[in-house]
Amino acid sequence: MTADDTGLSVLDEGECMALLAGVRVGRVAVSIGAVPAVFPVNFGVVDGTIVFRTGTGTKLDAATRNAVVAFEVDDLDPLYHEGWSVLVVGVADELTDRALLQRAEALPLSPWAPGRRDHFVRLQPEFVSGRRIFQGAPAANGTTGGGRA
Amino acid sequence: MTADDTGLSVLDEGECMALLAGVRVGRVAVSIGAVPAVFPVNFGVVDGTIVFRTGTGTKLDAATRNAVVAFEVDDLDPLYHEGWSVLVVGVADELTDRALLQRAEALPLSPWAPGRRDHFVRLQPEFVSGRRIFQGAPAANGTTGGGRA
Repeated sequence: MTADDTGLSVLDEGECMALLAGVRVGRVAVSIGAVPAVFPVNFGVVDGTIVFRTGTGTKLDAATRNAVVAFEVDDLDPLYHEGWSVLVVGVADELTDRALLQRAEALPLSPWAPGRRDHFVRLQPEFVSGRRIFQGAPAANGTTGGGRA
Repeated sequence: MTADDTGLSVLDEGECMALLAGVRVGRVAVSIGAVPAVFPVNFGVVDGTIVFRTGTGTKLDAATRNAVVAFEVDDLDPLYHEGWSVLVVGVADELTDRALLQRAEALPLSPWAPGRRDHFVRLQPEFVSGRRIFQGAPAANGTTGGGRA
């Protein structure tokens, strides 16, 4: 790890992806028209890509079709200002490869409503960054360990 | 509460703001150029507006200057698929009103690096939505209770 200019520890891509693989809920940031939105999702990692479910015809579905999205995961202690966060940016598309689909379906992701036609969104990381903050470290500029502040 | 078309419970604006006021870490989604990004921040609520710190000259600072941003808070149990999430969209700007600044400075937000010239960003909610998911309820389309899926 190295320190960035805010006094937080910068995580390398390998550390980021290892931390990311250890949690199950992340937040997807997308634009719906010109308006930003954030959705929490259960996700998994398949072959280095982030995979989550979405329902056909939903706003999240539309917003992640071949769009650049941001995906954030963290583990933060709001009282002690310890923890980490990882930001991934990349293009999202529908997961259609049969072998990868089988692996995605085996992930412990949320169940979905009976009869609903759901599918998997795949996010291929193109930019990965992360920060770690320790107790007593300056939580520079009010961010708690995340992304490119 | 009413149910939306995904089987989740829809929270009204009052419920959303009450839940939001009970947590201390949220995620701010912004665009940096054309690229989306998400930053976790310690925040507080002053006069119905969301307030958090950012350092002058940082990317988060630039991205929240009179920009439309999304702000998400949640409390989710990834194992049992219970919890809630709230999404707020609005215009962010710098908090400059002296009386409000005094109240913001009294909030238990992260400390910042000595000598750093920090200021407060204020987000005035223009759109507020929220969802709650209960154990056993279908976590429709893979989202875990958030926003407008």
